[in-house]
Amino acid sequence: MAQDLWFEDFTVGRRFRTRGVTLSEAQILDFAWQWDPQPFHIDLEASSRWGYGGLIASGFHTLCAAFRMVVQERIFTAASLGSPGMDKIRWLRPVRPGDTIQTELEVIDARISQSKPDRGIVTMLYRVWNQRGEEVMRLEAVQILRRRPEN
Amino acid sequence: MAQDLWFEDFTVGRRFRTRGVTLSEAQILDFAWQWDPQPFHIDLEASSRWGYGGLIASGFHTLCAAFRMVVQERIFTAASLGSPGMDKIRWLRPVRPGDTIQTELEVIDARISQSKPDRGIVTMLYRVWNQRGEEVMRLEAVQILRRRPEN
Repeated sequence: MAQDLWFEDFTVGRRFRTRGVTLSEAQILDFAWQWDPQPFHIDLEASSRWGYGGLIASGFHTLCAAFRMVVQERIFTAASLGSPGMDKIRWLRPVRPGDTIQTELEVIDARISQSKPDRGIVTMLYRVWNQRGEEVMRLEAVQILRRRPEN
Repeated sequence: MAQDLWFEDFTVGRRFRTRGVTLSEAQILDFAWQWDPQPFHIDLEASSRWGYGGLIASGFHTLCAAFRMVVQERIFTAASLGSPGMDKIRWLRPVRPGDTIQTELEVIDARISQSKPDRGIVTMLYRVWNQRGEEVMRLEAVQILRRRPEN
């Protein structure tokens, strides 16, 4: 089992990088049909006539996949107490069927909670890259993380 | 079929309100197991011992459901050319099994694109409410919308 990380491990400037995940055409269609059924996300024929030049993944799909990669790497597993919000989400380039994406995290702010000193408030810059090294999405997320238990 | 809306219909101050959707325990568990498998989203036993006092929906689930409600109401259907991003996402209160949520949209900015005058750039405030009239999530999203075709 991976070693648990706590608030104290999230020092400003520290970076984490997840392994990748490939989004198939079927997954893109399934996700969009459930959550974002716009023509350029669910209809191969319509999307080929669209400005995007073919099917593209819902931005919510890229977002959920990015977060799942981070949870799967166990970066937050022990310490996470949830998140109050996210800022500056930008979908920079389309994600297409067969693209493989990876998530990079960088700690950009970290401070102890004033009201609850057993935890800290960490802001992380998420950057999602495709297999060509192009940035496809970025955002800033706030995460509440437990401090390392004393024992 | 509902009447199509175009950029010109999204005047600052205009509001839209969707019908509601109920998130079941099974749906909350399924979504979280796929996208956000943290203990307070996937484990009834662990979540009962957590600070949130029981199972809560992933914030990404609330987010995706809010957007799906908007697409389902056909508010953007004809005009949407996608979104470059979102800002100021705040998860204000937990969403629990059996809660019914609704999305309210308010146009807070609208302008014609400088570079592509066939479309406009609209910023909308999303507010998601539960069945007790409590706000559970809010965000600001930018949407690119086609102008009304001439004919």
